[in-house]
Amino acid sequence: MATLIKNGTIVTGTDLFKADLRIKDGTIRSIGPGLEHAGDVVVDATGRFVMPGGIDVHTHLDMPFMGARSTDDFETGTIAAAMGGTTSHIDFIVPVKGRPLQEALETWRGKAEGKAAIDYGFHLCIVEMTPSTLGELDAMLEDGITSFKLFTAYPGALMIDDGAIFTTLRWAADRGALIQVHAENGPAIAEIVDAMVAEGRTEPKYHGLSRPSALEGEATARVITLAGVAGAPLYIVHLTCREALEAVGKARKRGQRVYAETCPQYLYLSSDDMARPGFEGAKYVCTPPIRDKEHAPALWRGLAQGDILTVATDHCPFDYDGAKRMGEGDFRKIPSGLPGIETRMALLYHGVTENRISLTRFVDAVATKPAKLFGLYPRKGAIVPGADADIVLWDPERDYSLSHKDLHMRVDYSPYEGMTLKGGPDKVFIRGELVADNGRFLGKPGFGRYLHRDRFHPIEL
Amino acid sequence: MATLIKNGTIVTGTDLFKADLRIKDGTIRSIGPGLEHAGDVVVDATGRFVMPGGIDVHTHLDMPFMGARSTDDFETGTIAAAMGGTTSHIDFIVPVKGRPLQEALETWRGKAEGKAAIDYGFHLCIVEMTPSTLGELDAMLEDGITSFKLFTAYPGALMIDDGAIFTTLRWAADRGALIQVHAENGPAIAEIVDAMVAEGRTEPKYHGLSRPSALEGEATARVITLAGVAGAPLYIVHLTCREALEAVGKARKRGQRVYAETCPQYLYLSSDDMARPGFEGAKYVCTPPIRDKEHAPALWRGLAQGDILTVATDHCPFDYDGAKRMGEGDFRKIPSGLPGIETRMALLYHGVTENRISLTRFVDAVATKPAKLFGLYPRKGAIVPGADADIVLWDPERDYSLSHKDLHMRVDYSPYEGMTLKGGPDKVFIRGELVADNGRFLGKPGFGRYLHRDRFHPIEL
Amino acid sequence: MATLIKNGTIVTGTDLFKADLRIKDGTIRSIGPGLEHAGDVVVDATGRFVMPGGIDVHTHLDMPFMGARSTDDFETGTIAAAMGGTTSHIDFIVPVKGRPLQEALETWRGKAEGKAAIDYGFHLCIVEMTPSTLGELDAMLEDGITSFKLFTAYPGALMIDDGAIFTTLRWAADRGALIQVHAENGPAIAEIVDAMVAEGRTEPKYHGLSRPSALEGEATARVITLAGVAGAPLYIVHLTCREALEAVGKARKRGQRVYAETCPQYLYLSSDDMARPGFEGAKYVCTPPIRDKEHAPALWRGLAQGDILTVATDHCPFDYDGAKRMGEGDFRKIPSGLPGIETRMALLYHGVTENRISLTRFVDAVATKPAKLFGLYPRKGAIVPGADADIVLWDPERDYSLSHKDLHMRVDYSPYEGMTLKGGPDKVFIRGELVADNGRFLGKPGFGRYLHRDRFHPIEL
Amino acid sequence: MATLIKNGTIVTGTDLFKADLRIKDGTIRSIGPGLEHAGDVVVDATGRFVMPGGIDVHTHLDMPFMGARSTDDFETGTIAAAMGGTTSHIDFIVPVKGRPLQEALETWRGKAEGKAAIDYGFHLCIVEMTPSTLGELDAMLEDGITSFKLFTAYPGALMIDDGAIFTTLRWAADRGALIQVHAENGPAIAEIVDAMVAEGRTEPKYHGLSRPSALEGEATARVITLAGVAGAPLYIVHLTCREALEAVGKARKRGQRVYAETCPQYLYLSSDDMARPGFEGAKYVCTPPIRDKEHAPALWRGLAQGDILTVATDHCPFDYDGAKRMGEGDFRKIPSGLPGIETRMALLYHGVTENRISLTRFVDAVATKPAKLFGLYPRKGAIVPGADADIVLWDPERDYSLSHKDLHMRVDYSPYEGMTLKGGPDKVFIRGELVADNGRFLGKPGFGRYLHRDRFHPIEL
Repeated sequence: MATLIKNGTIVTGTDLFKADLRIKDGTIRSIGPGLEHAGDVVVDATGRFVMPGGIDVHTHLDMPFMGARSTDDFETGTIAAAMGGTTSHIDFIVPVKGRPLQEALETWRGKAEGKAAIDYGFHLCIVEMTPSTLGELDAMLEDGITSFKLFTAYPGALMIDDGAIFTTLRWAADRGALIQVHAENGPAIAEIVDAMVAEGRTEPKYHGLSRPSALEGEATARVITLAGVAGAPLYIVHLTCREALEAVGKARKRGQRVYAETCPQYLYLSSDDMARPGFEGAKYVCTPPIRDKEHAPALWRGLAQGDILTVATDHCPFDYDGAKRMGEGDFRKIPSGLPGIETRMALLYHGVTENRISLTRFVDAVATKPAKLFGLYPRKGAIVPGADADIVLWDPERDYSLSHKDLHMRVDYSPYEGMTLKGGPDKVFIRGELVADNGRFLGKPGFGRYLHRDRFHPIEL
Repeated sequence: MATLIKNGTIVTGTDLFKADLRIKDGTIRSIGPGLEHAGDVVVDATGRFVMPGGIDVHTHLDMPFMGARSTDDFETGTIAAAMGGTTSHIDFIVPVKGRPLQEALETWRGKAEGKAAIDYGFHLCIVEMTPSTLGELDAMLEDGITSFKLFTAYPGALMIDDGAIFTTLRWAADRGALIQVHAENGPAIAEIVDAMVAEGRTEPKYHGLSRPSALEGEATARVITLAGVAGAPLYIVHLTCREALEAVGKARKRGQRVYAETCPQYLYLSSDDMARPGFEGAKYVCTPPIRDKEHAPALWRGLAQGDILTVATDHCPFDYDGAKRMGEGDFRKIPSGLPGIETRMALLYHGVTENRISLTRFVDAVATKPAKLFGLYPRKGAIVPGADADIVLWDPERDYSLSHKDLHMRVDYSPYEGMTLKGGPDKVFIRGELVADNGRFLGKPGFGRYLHRDRFHPIEL
Repeated sequence: MATLIKNGTIVTGTDLFKADLRIKDGTIRSIGPGLEHAGDVVVDATGRFVMPGGIDVHTHLDMPFMGARSTDDFETGTIAAAMGGTTSHIDFIVPVKGRPLQEALETWRGKAEGKAAIDYGFHLCIVEMTPSTLGELDAMLEDGITSFKLFTAYPGALMIDDGAIFTTLRWAADRGALIQVHAENGPAIAEIVDAMVAEGRTEPKYHGLSRPSALEGEATARVITLAGVAGAPLYIVHLTCREALEAVGKARKRGQRVYAETCPQYLYLSSDDMARPGFEGAKYVCTPPIRDKEHAPALWRGLAQGDILTVATDHCPFDYDGAKRMGEGDFRKIPSGLPGIETRMALLYHGVTENRISLTRFVDAVATKPAKLFGLYPRKGAIVPGADADIVLWDPERDYSLSHKDLHMRVDYSPYEGMTLKGGPDKVFIRGELVADNGRFLGKPGFGRYLHRDRFHPIEL
Repeated sequence: MATLIKNGTIVTGTDLFKADLRIKDGTIRSIGPGLEHAGDVVVDATGRFVMPGGIDVHTHLDMPFMGARSTDDFETGTIAAAMGGTTSHIDFIVPVKGRPLQEALETWRGKAEGKAAIDYGFHLCIVEMTPSTLGELDAMLEDGITSFKLFTAYPGALMIDDGAIFTTLRWAADRGALIQVHAENGPAIAEIVDAMVAEGRTEPKYHGLSRPSALEGEATARVITLAGVAGAPLYIVHLTCREALEAVGKARKRGQRVYAETCPQYLYLSSDDMARPGFEGAKYVCTPPIRDKEHAPALWRGLAQGDILTVATDHCPFDYDGAKRMGEGDFRKIPSGLPGIETRMALLYHGVTENRISLTRFVDAVATKPAKLFGLYPRKGAIVPGADADIVLWDPERDYSLSHKDLHMRVDYSPYEGMTLKGGPDKVFIRGELVADNGRFLGKPGFGRYLHRDRFHPIEL
């Protein structure tokens, strides 16, 4: 059976035009005005933007962290994603030190299989460098895991030292892998945290004050330099501040292949939220922390111009009246993370309505560039014949206010509670199947397929 | 009658995919795999890139200049353009001081009508500011002339002062017009020129030495500042050097709408060419001059990253054994200009083969961004249903060496004589008509239509 | 007769030490601890800084301007200067167009002779470029006028075009003259002014709003580029804003000889003052205008680090209940200028008490660097044997509040009325003569001598 | 007994003037023209610059390193220093891990006492952070050790991690100590070194190639950020490259207290020297390595403008036909270090003769700023009454060629062999005693006194 989406305005990473679009066997078959085909299911897209399904390349579903577990699993999280217009995501495998990486991959595939409602892939975190690590990474590439995350933060836990980072970058340059970095100067932050706690500064806002933006800028610049010397491309996850953006922009100007991602929380929220009375600031505790107000406008500019290429979520929800409460009286114990997988696209589209970015750049940042960077293009992220029919019909006129009660993420609050938006997904197709329609989920858990990803090809960018 | 282009790889400003494409009534009708339609003319595009026809937004055909006239008129120039894959161009109207602008428009339309083999539009040069000028410019907008060029160079001739520039920018900001600037500090250059001639330095290379890149950088930065204060978007024509690029990049970083164009001569040639023995340097005399070798790599990086958005030609040919000879013994009298309308796309594609820019960025720079900036999108510059079927089948495997004998421009030399290239246009369609095929011109003079252009819409970029 | 200054702390542009100082025949004779000399007049400087007399290199005494005349003449102005610790100044000769420069010099010498209470020199403004101008400038050098001011502001009046500026810079590079520039983009400002007046925006604050800092930054960058191409050193007068400072800093980083001056009004006042209710803003109207609050901290940093080398006053007072009133209802008619010659040193010393600059940098900025830049060193600006005994005993403990009633400038207001300061001059010597003592003027009009200045020697900086 | 230095030209960090100078009881007594005093020893300084004795704040005498020992001890090294015009130095104490810092101080005082011919102080290297470290550092301050060196290089040996660096910076900010940093990314370098050796790249030049300048720039920027967050002043030792200089300049522009030092080897030598045939490159092996040619001009500009404030030597000599030979066949085993304590001032003065820096800046960089930064001012580094009479009579006309045979350092080669210089020390006084005269050493070992240094006072800079 085929589907004919008629009368919509197609939006890609560069183009904007009126045309019909025909889906058959899960892929896009043809694009043109006045398409007709007997027997097709016809979907009227009048007044809708017809765009590629969103790809969220930074999620943490069902993840053990700081003694808790992110509240969304691959079922609830991916249903929420679909409701928000996201049709693929890439989650992070976090291996246990001393255990084989393959085991971690199996654990994560086990979490997703039978549960995921949208297509999914994995990045792998590298949390130690042993004599066998590089060999195991080679094996990962064969399994379609082609991007790897390193940490300059969390000393004693996830952090590896600059020598191991450099070795990994050299390996990646040779293999066509893409290294992602969580960039903050962990050891210096640990000293500040200790000093703050010693002084009795334990409210949620001190989470932010203990991690100054300068230390994200430093670590970002450092890893960019290491990547430059190693000749490796580099992807900065969740960039939050001007200092880091400046480092990225400077490197790009001299021609280095550096790509950055930000998240909606850094575009819309501020350190003022973390300083809300009582313990409410805990709702806004994520890492790196949300910054002072003056950073967001710079991030928007970076996004408009491409120094920030993608918008992902770092989705990692914890209940406020749940795990977050572990940190009352000690900000160090607040599980760090925010919900976001469902609201990403609507929040970024808000920037289009405010003329911060163009409509094509919106599509580019939430779908096309993620696909290209992470080896999914042109299967995903594109409205082109032959691509998977992951399609969102976006209603630019829908007016609504965000409330966690209306959202599908399994968490008891929204950081954007009460925010008024215009524009959201109307119908969502994954591989041709209608999985969400006007606020109803029509898909099913387990429909999502594992994404075996290609290696990094800079030439497609 | 319809045409079906089968088995090609479609390339747009962002996408790259295999699909067929059907043309009917001069426009693109549908895109999809395995298209079939009885009665269609079928064109096999196996091994070809199917891309939008090129748009050259900087040409000077049939232009009186420095006592000579550019050797290509709208017939020879546009035939050459078509042979090189360019299907639309925008030429510059140069009014006579003291005469109505409308008269100049009529003169230029008269030059083109019945002769142009490709579609054509006009920019207007503003060479004086009289009490009636702004009113006349308003009328131009109604005629589809929506971009206007100012000069900080050529004092006493084309230059207007910073006050008039500022007034024009304010008007443009209000009206949705786009101001283009030839940015060099004319008065300072005039002093240097006089001093050089006084010292007997009259060979062609002194044309370049009398116009240092710092003075282009200065004027570029100046006009960017004026545009910023006026709130107007700005387009820098033929940017040649690092200083100017730095000014553009800095403005873009802070969010200002500044767009830059460069030309192949600044990417491939150098001041060494102007210093060739005897009078041969005259072949390379254009304004701004071709720079020292270290500038071109910076321009390529700017092009890859978007600080330089478009590549045009400043096509303005003069015969070496003709008008150029007027300047023997006095570089001031060498008519300034190079041929280029035919070779632009092949030269820029060369940068793709050398991994300087991606294939999609190539298409973006020669077709999509020119269309978007100058009010032609999505009619032109896009492979989307509904667009004019201006299409090039690009053969990436074609090997050849450039020689003016094989080219169609009416001029007795090529600045790139002997340069080896790979890749060039195979078939070229304009509004569905095949106008060039494997080196033969199949179109006809007068086929080109006047392009009534829309006003500037930043949101489409 | 000789004078022995005992027990003070000597401060120079680099050193700070306790020593006695002996003056004889108008010059410094010896420096050392425990100096004794029978018959000397002994001055106890316990608790005082013993520093070189201040040099104000930017004053406009007895100057016709905008239909008025600056209220201080060479008598009242230099007495006020002496009371503030300034022992030399350099005033600007403003020639009449079409008249010989020598005539202008004579006019200005006539204003000063017999009246000046401190030593004085002259800069010359170049307000037109005629065939005889460069020859006349050569003659000026012989008369000890070695610095020349150009304007990119005031089109139709003082402005000369970029070609003339460039020619002058080349001449200066060859002759060892120092070019000073008032840098604002005059023609663009004229357009804004006209538009504002047309819209009925005529209050004093529109003086500032019509001259945006970006247009000072632009002109500063432009003239720096011209000076760089010409190979000439450059001195930017009254730099007021971040944009201009950035241009200076960038040039200095690449090794260009660019020097900048600011004035106390740009360090302490802000555009808020110009927006005071009623007509009071007129008290703060000067050109370039006083900027928004965020600029001053950048100027202080520039001053600490040397990108701003000197602090002068642009002293040019007009009575509020006098000439300033001409501009009620039309900001264009407010005579532009502030009083300052008397308060410069105390205001800058305030920055020492606030740890913005060091004590040695204070002396350097108000005395040593002015002397070195303008051909007076080591006769002036230094505490070294052989130098003129122009010496200030500075009392760091004096507490007081500024009021025009206590000041000696001939003007009916102070822009700093009520500001509380700590530190001021106690005793002031010029060529060994005590001219001010504890708030009493002891000198006499006509005591001041003409300063025949040397040419510019970068090596002394 | 007193000494009268007559007819010289006194040069300080800011002033240049003709005057006599009288020394009594080891200190400067008075400065003035025509000084006369019966019974004084009169020294004629006609044609000489009379300047403060040089202070070398970076030396390694008698230091065990890499299995060898620097060949100069406190006797030979300080005699050589005196012969070159250096009258004080500050050496580095390198503690043994696990042992008390006080013990290390005693060891180093033991090396110097009875041997040093010039005055000497100590910095302390912090090579580990134990629970007692900060307390021990407090004790050091009482002993007059007020500056402390940290390493981001040499992992597993001298390096401490960013957390410990940050803690130390915070302590220093609180105590008025000055932290010095050897800034290179040690862990990344270790990976490169291993890879090079694995590939058989073991010649001396690979020492340089394994330590790219980008990794010095990175570490410099990193520690500057840490110091900024900690609120501590920072001193970068032996800065060698553009990347590091850019980081310093950027920090200084925003007002951070960052000071940099370079050494003559980075101003005059290049990586070409390390690539000399055979093993000769070992003569040029020091750390950070000497850079490619394009770096030195940037360092000179930085020195002229103050982003580089001081010039020291990192004097650490090893015989070429001695310890250096340990590294034949394995660059890792070449003891890293160059001789320089004797030639520093003549080499930097060469920059004055080439117009790279002014004469006053020369004095400032080799004497005044070192004294101010390291708590010795105004006792040292100044020609002011009351200061120690550490004085050099500099002969600007002396012509000679450098050869290790004529030099007094105890090492078998000079990196500058054959270099032609103009200008050198004629007579050298320490605390009024003539210790060197026209190439003869007149002082005696043990004459040097320990310098108990004050804490850091930014206000004096």
